[in-house]
Amino acid sequence: MTALTELKEILYEVNDLNMAQNVLGWDQSTNMPVGGALDRSYQLGTLAKLAHQQFTSDQVGELLQRSQAETAGLDETSDDASLVRVAGKQYSRARKVSAKWIEKFVQVTSNAQTVWEKAKQEADFPLFQPHLSEIFELRKEYSSFFQPYEHIYDPLLDEFEPGLKTAEVQRIFNDIRPHQIKLISAIQQAEPVRDDFLYLNYAKDAQWQFGMNVIKKFGFDFEHGRQDISVHPFTTNFGLGDVRITTRIDENYLPTALFGSMHEAGHAMYEQNISPSLRRTLLCGGASMAIHESQSRLWENMVGRSAMFWQHFYPALVKLFPSQLGNVDLRTFYRGINYVKPGMIRVEADEATYNLHIMLRMEIEIAVLEGKIAVKDLPAVWNEKMKSYLGIVPSNDAEGVLQDVHWSGGMMGYFPTYALGNIVSAQVWEKLNSENPNLMDQISKGEFKLMLTWLADRIYQHGSKFEPKQIIRNISGGDLQAAPYIHYLENKYQDIYNL
Amino acid sequence: MTALTELKEILYEVNDLNMAQNVLGWDQSTNMPVGGALDRSYQLGTLAKLAHQQFTSDQVGELLQRSQAETAGLDETSDDASLVRVAGKQYSRARKVSAKWIEKFVQVTSNAQTVWEKAKQEADFPLFQPHLSEIFELRKEYSSFFQPYEHIYDPLLDEFEPGLKTAEVQRIFNDIRPHQIKLISAIQQAEPVRDDFLYLNYAKDAQWQFGMNVIKKFGFDFEHGRQDISVHPFTTNFGLGDVRITTRIDENYLPTALFGSMHEAGHAMYEQNISPSLRRTLLCGGASMAIHESQSRLWENMVGRSAMFWQHFYPALVKLFPSQLGNVDLRTFYRGINYVKPGMIRVEADEATYNLHIMLRMEIEIAVLEGKIAVKDLPAVWNEKMKSYLGIVPSNDAEGVLQDVHWSGGMMGYFPTYALGNIVSAQVWEKLNSENPNLMDQISKGEFKLMLTWLADRIYQHGSKFEPKQIIRNISGGDLQAAPYIHYLENKYQDIYNL
Repeated sequence: MTALTELKEILYEVNDLNMAQNVLGWDQSTNMPVGGALDRSYQLGTLAKLAHQQFTSDQVGELLQRSQAETAGLDETSDDASLVRVAGKQYSRARKVSAKWIEKFVQVTSNAQTVWEKAKQEADFPLFQPHLSEIFELRKEYSSFFQPYEHIYDPLLDEFEPGLKTAEVQRIFNDIRPHQIKLISAIQQAEPVRDDFLYLNYAKDAQWQFGMNVIKKFGFDFEHGRQDISVHPFTTNFGLGDVRITTRIDENYLPTALFGSMHEAGHAMYEQNISPSLRRTLLCGGASMAIHESQSRLWENMVGRSAMFWQHFYPALVKLFPSQLGNVDLRTFYRGINYVKPGMIRVEADEATYNLHIMLRMEIEIAVLEGKIAVKDLPAVWNEKMKSYLGIVPSNDAEGVLQDVHWSGGMMGYFPTYALGNIVSAQVWEKLNSENPNLMDQISKGEFKLMLTWLADRIYQHGSKFEPKQIIRNISGGDLQAAPYIHYLENKYQDIYNL
Repeated sequence: MTALTELKEILYEVNDLNMAQNVLGWDQSTNMPVGGALDRSYQLGTLAKLAHQQFTSDQVGELLQRSQAETAGLDETSDDASLVRVAGKQYSRARKVSAKWIEKFVQVTSNAQTVWEKAKQEADFPLFQPHLSEIFELRKEYSSFFQPYEHIYDPLLDEFEPGLKTAEVQRIFNDIRPHQIKLISAIQQAEPVRDDFLYLNYAKDAQWQFGMNVIKKFGFDFEHGRQDISVHPFTTNFGLGDVRITTRIDENYLPTALFGSMHEAGHAMYEQNISPSLRRTLLCGGASMAIHESQSRLWENMVGRSAMFWQHFYPALVKLFPSQLGNVDLRTFYRGINYVKPGMIRVEADEATYNLHIMLRMEIEIAVLEGKIAVKDLPAVWNEKMKSYLGIVPSNDAEGVLQDVHWSGGMMGYFPTYALGNIVSAQVWEKLNSENPNLMDQISKGEFKLMLTWLADRIYQHGSKFEPKQIIRNISGGDLQAAPYIHYLENKYQDIYNL
């Protein structure tokens, strides 16, 4: 297979350039002194440019064609056939987008992010509005490269969630919306649970140690990764053998660091358990944003916010923070960390309200792209939707339409993957439990090997060989379904709020 | 100047690729989990290969020729003329080395460094031996690209010290060796000074804080740099605005961390004070390794091991470590940190014995390259030479042949620059004092602005515009001379040992 060998060599180098960008990005967020910003932006720009040039070259196109012929007889789940198939899809997508568009997009969004920061700080939407309008126009143009499409939003969605269609997401969201609204309403009529003890002073070092211990128990591999501190938690990888997470610690709110670490560890264990045979290829990464998010949410919520988990870990936490938690019993603690309260800020939302934040964003993105809403009207539309979904109205645009960085970076089509991640996590969780009747017992003993091994076998090892649809089918035997997540939420909160 | 503008754009990108390598290298030494080694070596290999390819392209050669014509009328010390001149020299050197060699070299050495760390930890030379053999073979191949040469070692030296020849180094070393041996012998017959108090237990945190304070006072700029911990201290830069140093802390030996930090800060302040007009160009770095080392030794030894320096800083140190130093007076401390005792470890060697460690290494490098010694025999050869030069024999290879990181990084030809740095530092120090009669007074007050400003003006700002010879001439009015260093050593130790 001479073409394939040659193709692989080029793709390895593209991967090296991408991984190098990850190292520079990680360092920028964790270690870089302020003076390093200017040089770093040049370096990241150059690496991105070279990676794009190499990947979209005519030579790669030609090698891909010949490699397709060479791998035609192989099992389509084999490493080589998968590589050629996925690379082919990424290549044809990348080639459809004009270099001129990319240049303008990078320029506009880089500028818009700076303006957005200021606009958010000053709660000044009109300042950001012309930039956001330009970005939406650019995103319309991006979609036009992929005509014909069923829906203008499809090409955007496809960038983050290969193969997923807008109609399908809308169907799922329509399914789930009334259930979540009903659930929230029931919770608001129930007697509130206590969460005051979470807001006491918790020493940073002790929080760090506890979190490190938990993710170590999960199975996060510190010989192939590390955890550090950054302003916004994230996961990144520099190849199969070095997957890094960050967290942030709030001295006066216990959940921030702990659940942040669990969440990122979920992402990271996915990456750490990809088959070594995929090392240095473009298959050596998660299958999609939603599948990735399903794993972070699985470890953070299904495990980390479960009663079983805390049955094992709570005594150690109380021992570490006796004055804060000595008088808080396990059940009270468990209910506290699952406190439900509609709030303005998506990243602080509980499981019951989270998806509504996402639906609101997706509806707005689609309406603007379809020309049904003008960008200048977004603050009003946002506030109306918040009122109708969550019963609350932002007091200013900083805690409303300006709260997320995504739009300033042009990431329209990304938000839905957060909610889809929740939904998929429940499908995985259901299957995981039905195939492993011992699971809850293991978790209540602080043992996660059974769980991690099953997930690695069913999902993680395959990297991005399979499209999200196929992964969901492999796990559940069917398609993306809202029912398991609705079920999970209803069961959980019936218990917690005595509904 | 159209060719020069075009040339600059390419050189900027080459520089970005080189700086990205520095980031990846820094991370490898400070943060990378063991599992990251393999991927990292690929990434470093690819970046080095691309940088080399871009820099050595025919296009650059052509642009260089046209740029030489365009800059012909400019002052040769101008930024543009200097850039074209220095780039031209580097280009013709780089064109001689194959891209394939570079890629292999970077890959092999990146991997070897990880192995070396383990080998050193376990004092296991055989573990490291095959890697070292491969590196020596690669270095022989490197020299072969430069045939004909006077000496196989010349091309290696030239990489670190442009223009310097093996014969010249041997001559200077032959000049200086008898003086150093005579001095050591006189000291060994003199009454020993006390240094027992340096070996007490000094808490790591307090050592770290003291060192940070000292280099801050020196003028190390923490908005454009940082300090971290690594196995072997080093300085690296990711551009003008981000220059990083590392140190290591020995809880039971005070000098390691402190003088390590001062040494690396000397390197770093050189880089931090290069003129911003040279940003992102290949002139944005020190002129040569020896000139660089002259600055690290200047700050570490001439300043950091001087009586004047400690007149200001000793009270604070005593306050930090009262039980260890409360009964040690300033003069006893000053003599203690200048204790002369032949020891195993180069980086801990005193000023009287240091150069002998270098001579040993250079002789070994030359003998292996000439095929007169086999790599497998290096531990035995090392130990014999230690016995003959310093009268001592390592008890294991960790404190013998495995002690330095350099060979694992393929840096044969580098060691001599350390000794040359000592020699140059004395020439600079002499001039610095003669032009600034106030200098010692300032230092005794813990003020270094006068010194840093003079050095920045005379040396640092120019980056690598000038060759080492020219810098020495600019400072001293003459050539490289051993006399000032011999003078400096004799004066210093006559006082300390009452010779």
